[in-house]
Amino acid sequence: MPAAEERVSGNLIYRGRIINLRVDNVRLPGGSKTMREVVEHAPAVGIVAEAENGDLLLVRQYRYPVGEFLLEIPAGIIEEGEKPAETARREMQEEIGYDAGEIREVMRFYTSPGFSNEMLVIFHAVNLVPSEKDCDSDEFLDVVRLSPRELRQAVESGKIKDSKTISSIFWYLAHKNDISQGGGG
Amino acid sequence: MPAAEERVSGNLIYRGRIINLRVDNVRLPGGSKTMREVVEHAPAVGIVAEAENGDLLLVRQYRYPVGEFLLEIPAGIIEEGEKPAETARREMQEEIGYDAGEIREVMRFYTSPGFSNEMLVIFHAVNLVPSEKDCDSDEFLDVVRLSPRELRQAVESGKIKDSKTISSIFWYLAHKNDISQGGGG
Repeated sequence: MPAAEERVSGNLIYRGRIINLRVDNVRLPGGSKTMREVVEHAPAVGIVAEAENGDLLLVRQYRYPVGEFLLEIPAGIIEEGEKPAETARREMQEEIGYDAGEIREVMRFYTSPGFSNEMLVIFHAVNLVPSEKDCDSDEFLDVVRLSPRELRQAVESGKIKDSKTISSIFWYLAHKNDISQGGGG
Repeated sequence: MPAAEERVSGNLIYRGRIINLRVDNVRLPGGSKTMREVVEHAPAVGIVAEAENGDLLLVRQYRYPVGEFLLEIPAGIIEEGEKPAETARREMQEEIGYDAGEIREVMRFYTSPGFSNEMLVIFHAVNLVPSEKDCDSDEFLDVVRLSPRELRQAVESGKIKDSKTISSIFWYLAHKNDISQGGGG
């Protein structure tokens, strides 16, 4: 089994709003040295928000780093002192205007472990109850509702281009027993 | 429909080995201004490498930014002048020691569109032929072979923690007609 890499020294290059950048010198398992660039990002949540009829509620928003509008599950950074499930409920209210009757964690994953520590906790929310939609001041987004059939088509056609959303939709469809059949829409 | 955000000015904070960091001032659709942190990363590929019996070939490697060994599909950055399918073939040889008889693109997605432009092109490779394994000098990795049943279990149990790998495994299982049945292992 390969061994881990050990930090020798490091520099904080940038301390920012949603990310910090660190460049570390590390010792490789073979003894030689290299540098590793690390984008520090707080953990975040994403929500598979299921309406009564099995549709999911997604958001469409402009993503400046990629220069496109993307269709994504509601998501957001876990603030200081928040539990992940609290973040999930807050983001549901802010982004889609719903409270969840029930919410449970279904997956955790790293988005870009080659250069960042960003980790996502994915929740499944059901028994949704409408509440006040209360956007962040610099968030402009539309709520989009897709049936299981439309979700599958949106992933397969390339209409959905966001990794966490693709993982989450596939998870949802697999658990709806719906992937092979393509029904439910 | 919400409008796009417009770049007003920007600073290159860091130019590095696998990433650059840029901080831009942007004008929001409502007219107010904010800043956006953008981690520039070259596009990369990932490969769903299918053995004759339906197993997938994965790699286990230490990921310094997250401080863990992760089980992932073979993957790598598209080098200057390479076509994505060429990168996929090169990475298969370097990371798992196989050539692909056939290879085709199946998905594209952004890994972290909130702060990075990293885009992944996912390929499905079949008719694998053993070739010389030829690692990069700072890559230390083990090849791990999992059946469809083991893949599903590894995703569901949280053993697989990498977003592109989860998306790719779900894609593969959905296309194997295997997700609901849990067979094939």
